[in-house]
Order: sequence, then C-alpha cells, then structure tokens
Amino acid sequence: MKKTTTRLADGRELLYYDSRDDAVRDAVDRRPLDPVATSAELRRDPLLGDTVAVASHRQGRIYHPPADECPLCPSRDGRLSEIPAADYDVVVFENRFPSLAGDAGRCEVVCFTSDHDASFADLSPEQVRLVLGAWTDRTAELSQLPGVEQVFCFENRGKEIGVTLGHPHGQIYAYPFVTPRTELMLRSLAAHRERTGGGNLFDDVLAGERADGRRIVLKGEHWTAFVPFAAHWPYEVHLYPNRRVPDLLGLDEDARTEFPHVYLELLRRFDRIFGEGEPRTPYIAGWHQAPFGAADRRDFALHLELFTVRRTSGKLKFLAGSESGMSVFINDVPPETAAQRLREVASQ
Amino acid sequence: MKKTTTRLADGRELLYYDSRDDAVRDAVDRRPLDPVATSAELRRDPLLGDTVAVASHRQGRIYHPPADECPLCPSRDGRLSEIPAADYDVVVFENRFPSLAGDAGRCEVVCFTSDHDASFADLSPEQVRLVLGAWTDRTAELSQLPGVEQVFCFENRGKEIGVTLGHPHGQIYAYPFVTPRTELMLRSLAAHRERTGGGNLFDDVLAGERADGRRIVLKGEHWTAFVPFAAHWPYEVHLYPNRRVPDLLGLDEDARTEFPHVYLELLRRFDRIFGEGEPRTPYIAGWHQAPFGAADRRDFALHLELFTVRRTSGKLKFLAGSESGMSVFINDVPPETAAQRLREVASQ
Repeated sequence: MKKTTTRLADGRELLYYDSRDDAVRDAVDRRPLDPVATSAELRRDPLLGDTVAVASHRQGRIYHPPADECPLCPSRDGRLSEIPAADYDVVVFENRFPSLAGDAGRCEVVCFTSDHDASFADLSPEQVRLVLGAWTDRTAELSQLPGVEQVFCFENRGKEIGVTLGHPHGQIYAYPFVTPRTELMLRSLAAHRERTGGGNLFDDVLAGERADGRRIVLKGEHWTAFVPFAAHWPYEVHLYPNRRVPDLLGLDEDARTEFPHVYLELLRRFDRIFGEGEPRTPYIAGWHQAPFGAADRRDFALHLELFTVRRTSGKLKFLAGSESGMSVFINDVPPETAAQRLREVASQ
Repeated sequence: MKKTTTRLADGRELLYYDSRDDAVRDAVDRRPLDPVATSAELRRDPLLGDTVAVASHRQGRIYHPPADECPLCPSRDGRLSEIPAADYDVVVFENRFPSLAGDAGRCEVVCFTSDHDASFADLSPEQVRLVLGAWTDRTAELSQLPGVEQVFCFENRGKEIGVTLGHPHGQIYAYPFVTPRTELMLRSLAAHRERTGGGNLFDDVLAGERADGRRIVLKGEHWTAFVPFAAHWPYEVHLYPNRRVPDLLGLDEDARTEFPHVYLELLRRFDRIFGEGEPRTPYIAGWHQAPFGAADRRDFALHLELFTVRRTSGKLKFLAGSESGMSVFINDVPPETAAQRLREVASQ
C-alpha cells in the first residue's frame, strides 16, 4: 500500500491509498474554492450530560446530486470533483461540511472505490484490504491530533438512512471526547472486571456466544460474527477478531488477510435477508475502538457493529417515542430468528 | 370528567374519558377476538447495560390501513373497531400489539378524538383538558400496577417517523424499570445538588433560560417553553410548569387550565416552521415524569419534550453513524435560530 498526502484547493487534506507502490499522485485541484468556513460548536446538555455538535453550515451540503455531478467520482472528462486524479483506488479527504472541525475534532470522507455504481459488497478482497489499511492508517494519524480522544470509522449505506451521495463511501469521525456509547462500554467493562475478579467482559461475551451457538452468524479462523443477545436493531451483527485487540492497529497479518472475506460475506448476506426484488439493504456499519486516553484501553475489544433499519420487506424500524424519547429500544425480530435468517442466506 | 372502565372481547381494558358527567358507556365489543398472545421479553445488553424489549408478535400489526378500516374510529355503520361505542371523547385501551406486556410492563393507546382527520393541534382547549385528565389518571392508575417504575405518555405524529395509523392518537408506556434517559437526568440532578450545595438542576436550567431569553419560545403565566441550549433535534422545545412538580398528578388547577392554550399554540407553531405547502410537521412529544420509586422524586421536574425530525423543507434528520453508532448527536440548526423561528411563527 502506498500513501500520498496532498491538499485540495481550499487547504483540506486529501490522501490517496494505492495498491500499487509506483502510483504517482500529482494531480492538482484546479477548482476555485473558497476557504472552508466551519462553525462546528460542541455544547454539553446539562440534563443528559452528553455533548451535541451544532454545525449550522451543514444545511448547505450537497443533497442527492445527479450521477454526473457526483463529488466523489474522479475528475475526468472536464468535470472537476473532490478528487483531482482521473482515477483512484481508495481516497480519504477532510469533509467540506464537517460536523466536527478545528478544536472540536475532525470529519473525513473515505471513498471505497472510484466506481460510482458499486457497493461495498461488490469490492474485491484486495480492495477491502486496502480500505482496511486506510482505516488503520487514519486511526493512527488522527490519534496524533491534539485533543482527539476517539476515532470512529463507519459507513452509512442507503437513502433510507439519509445517505445523500450514492457513490460508495464511508466516514471517519475523530471525536475530541469519549462518546456516550463507548463510556457505557468502559463502565460495563470495569464493573465486570470487579464482579468477576479480573474477567474481561468482551472475552466472556464472545466465549459465551461461541459456546451457546444460537446467535452465531459466521465463524472464520480469526473472526466471529454473532447477533447480540439484546440486539437493538431488527438485524444486527457484531464482528470480533478471535484474538482481542484494542483497535485496528492491533490486528495481526492473519486477521487482516481474513477480514475481507468475512466482511464481504456478511454484507452479501445482509443484501439477501429480505429476498429477491427488495432494494439493497440499508445499513450502518462502524468500528468500535478503544479511546486513546482510556486507562484500561488494553481491555477494550475492537469490533465492528453492522445493523439495518429495515425490519421486514418494505418496512423500516423507526426510532420513535420509546427509543428517541426514553432510549428504550423495541426490537420486533428476536435475535435468534435474525441469526437463523443470516445463516440461511449464506453464500454456497 | 367521567371515567368508565370496560373490557374488549379479548379481555383488554378500555376506558372512556368523557367531558359530560352523564355519558353512558355500555356498548359491548362484538368482535370474535382471540385472546391476545404476547411474547414481550426484556433483555439486558451486557455492554451498554440497557434493556431491550423483544416483541416479535408486533411484526403482524396493522400497517397504514385505509381510512374506512381505521381501528381507532368509533364502531358505526356496521363496522366494528377497537372502540365499541358509536362515538367518544377520549378513550384509552391496552395495545393489541404491545411492546411491553405482562411482567414486562404495559402499553396503552390514547385516542385524542373520534375525528379521524383531525390532528392534536386541531383539538379545542376543552378536548386537550380532557386528554390531560386522561394522561394524569393513567399515570396514577399505572403507578399502582406491580413492577411499574415509570409512565411515559407520548405522541408520535407523522408517517415520516413511522406512524402507521393516521387517526390522532398517542401512547402510554408503563416501564418496569427506570429508562436510560431518566437515569441520566437523575444522575445529573444528584451531581448538581452536590456541586451547588443543594441546588435543583431543573430549577436552575429553567431560571437560566428565562433570564437569558435567547432560546425562549413562549412564556405563559404558569408555563415556559424554550429550545434547550444543547438541543439534539433541529427543532426541539421543552415545556415546563413554572412551579416544579414531579409528575402530572402534581399540576394544580391553574396550570391545568392554561396548559391546553400553551400546548396548542406550540403545536400550531410547529406546523408553521417550514412555511406553506409543506405537509404538517412530523413530531414526537412526550411527558417526562419522576419514576415512582426514585428516592429524590420530589426533586424531579415534570416537563414535556417536543421535537421534529424535519430539519428543513422536504428534508429529514436521520440518526445515522454518529447518532446510532456512538450516541453523539449532530444538530444542523443552532438552538437560538430554532427559537427565533418559533417566535416568528407565533399566532397573531
């Protein structure tokens, strides 16, 4: 993998990740861009104790452009996009409409492929390996930025969950604080260690699921995927490396080599859950990594959480009164049923 | 207000709340209903520590029926609905497809009016007063059920947030535990009391907003509405009685009398935020009340939280990677801007 770091016309960073070590990346961004004016502001909620990012400049962001105006396609045929090169493998650049910016963190966009019509599930294992390399590199680099506490690499897929650009891409948020969800995990981890005299919660959950088997979706040599016992979403899968590591940097060569095969198989199964004739399954997929400053970060277990908001053919799960008002999730699909379905639709 | 308690054919409870004290409610449910078979199960998430209600029977619930098959209209013209009477003021009944049931709590439906085409904002102040009476009575009654810790009266309005029945109605969830959101509030309340040597967080937030003024939406004699400093949603309003009470039962006559006028005005303004020609604003509205068993329940402040998922004309706020994956909200509308807009669209 070769990395080339460049700048866009407005000063934002853009990085090429190439599979060929002789790739030359010298294309210049010729667009007349004004410097980015961001106003991301973090506000603490006095009742809930969490932090909200207020980002008013985002209202002007690009919304479902036609395919021939896609800002994530390469620049060619006289049309200039966010990527100056005429083609690329994987690129990462700072978001022009960031939710987090300046002292308040950083937001990046990851283009998984230059092929506008592809989906992550269509990538080759080699391409996925390159994306994994980019995620790992970004985690390492962003950890060095002052104030960044946690890096979240994720993909939103599907207009059903608000994706406004069809080109296959993900995002990376570098938060300047430990997120509420990770704080809950760290608290459970500490309580479990206390209660069990040194046990590791992540290890025990993974071992429990492997022993029980009812919610196992897929077992690789180095990875295990299961539907969690108390899944919040209709179809939700957690993917863990069998050897616990705190973040993407900790993955060894064996786990890296197997990951593309395991993850592509999971995504293909997601697209088959609801049968033929249904549009591709919308999903959110994200890497949970240890915060950089956590005292017990070695106890944290890197894992990927993948879930869909579709609950049955043509119907979505909405976060209404109970979920959005009281943070209590109602799940209409029993986790054992979801796991069974995800085993039924395995590739032959 | 007259209350009449009856049973539906499958044994579920149905209650009429009438404004006329001489209302006679003796209609019998003549439908051949099977007993309700529910399988609501509560599962604790070991990593997040929260409780998920797994309710598989709900997948079969009624989904966008045509208006002439509405189960919430009165029974008339030979068609039998969930309400045996030929007309009603306000009715409450146990949900046939509950998320919580048996030992795991209870779910009720509240029909605000027999007028299928109305919206809550179309009700008269007298009708709203009756709904307030029903909410208060249900809170009192459900508090007596074994195991119920907390009662949440709320309304989901709009197909944009997944409402499948157009008839104006709300829901009541009786949770057998303290919800995560309320737990956070109780924790902040205790921390603030400690930090300030006895101060009340709710009182201080309300006094702060009234003194600052920038986020005030409406001031009644007995109620104050404001956009919170760290609003999570594009347009979000919190409505507090000026005299703090822990739950609906604590409201005095003056507050009860003024509430319908204040709340109807807020809902009308919500419908005007995005201007003419836009469909009525989807929203979630819910009453936050003190849990029955909380040691410091007297310190809790009853309030209503009202918010919309619409962020601008024709566009919704989705809970994607950051919100659903990490519980970090991004809000594109600054709270001061939202409050200003909600003042601009006041009724003349």
